[in-house]
Amino acid sequence: MSETPAFRPIGVIRTPHKEARGTPIQPKFAEGIEGTIEVDPGYVEGLADLDGFERIWLVYWFDRSPGMRLKVKPFMDDVERGLFATRAPCRPNPIGFSCVRLLKIDGNVLHVADVDILDGTPLLDIKPYVARFDKWDVKRSGWQDAADASATRADKRFEK
Amino acid sequence: MSETPAFRPIGVIRTPHKEARGTPIQPKFAEGIEGTIEVDPGYVEGLADLDGFERIWLVYWFDRSPGMRLKVKPFMDDVERGLFATRAPCRPNPIGFSCVRLLKIDGNVLHVADVDILDGTPLLDIKPYVARFDKWDVKRSGWQDAADASATRADKRFEK
Repeated sequence: MSETPAFRPIGVIRTPHKEARGTPIQPKFAEGIEGTIEVDPGYVEGLADLDGFERIWLVYWFDRSPGMRLKVKPFMDDVERGLFATRAPCRPNPIGFSCVRLLKIDGNVLHVADVDILDGTPLLDIKPYVARFDKWDVKRSGWQDAADASATRADKRFEK
Repeated sequence: MSETPAFRPIGVIRTPHKEARGTPIQPKFAEGIEGTIEVDPGYVEGLADLDGFERIWLVYWFDRSPGMRLKVKPFMDDVERGLFATRAPCRPNPIGFSCVRLLKIDGNVLHVADVDILDGTPLLDIKPYVARFDKWDVKRSGWQDAADASATRADKRFEK
């Protein structure tokens, strides 16, 4: 199967999280932590109408992923799990997404909260969070149903 | 900012949707429509533990995107909107994601339902849907709050 073209980042994500250790592992565990998204000026036209949305999806490149591992010990568990049953960054295609709260837009700069992303992460896409599309009720969430809910911050295990 | 490496698809998504026209525009509008995900055998180890999850995120390459447009008229509206305030496929980095229902896993083949994806779409990643992480209540969803809720299927507007 053919490779994708190389993707070109459309901006950069600025956050207080300078290293993996101590970074919240999900937006739910990053409540109130603010960051800014610097969108390259050439894309500003595409930001129209975004300010009406309370939350947005940021899609980004895990540029500091240590490379692929198909079995990982996730932060919230102490046994190895299949990579695709986790949100760990060491994926074959290191693409992450986070649903953050949009505070305001100033030109090409988005002010957001609930950021769980490392500072300097290259932004690939922005999509609106639409509850009608994105909110699902589920009864089963696999190993997560018995996960250690106190493990809300990263450590060094997935550093390069 | 440096480009990403080219991403290598990890499998292919098989669905009944052979062309954009008539394809549901979101999994919510594709309830019960089944498809299969053929994961390349080299990645099977990473599928361990996934079967406990009721829903999964498929991350994929919109390989038939017509190229970037920063203003688009979305299916559910009749005025132009900023691209990033929509889920249209004609994005600078044509990456899509869909939250589908996982029915069962047979070796390297995932059987899923609620698929809104074109047949043959290259798969980039699989992540578990975890309600504790992914479910957000919002009061405002921008232009979507007044969108045409009957427009649930695509037409040819975003074809190559």
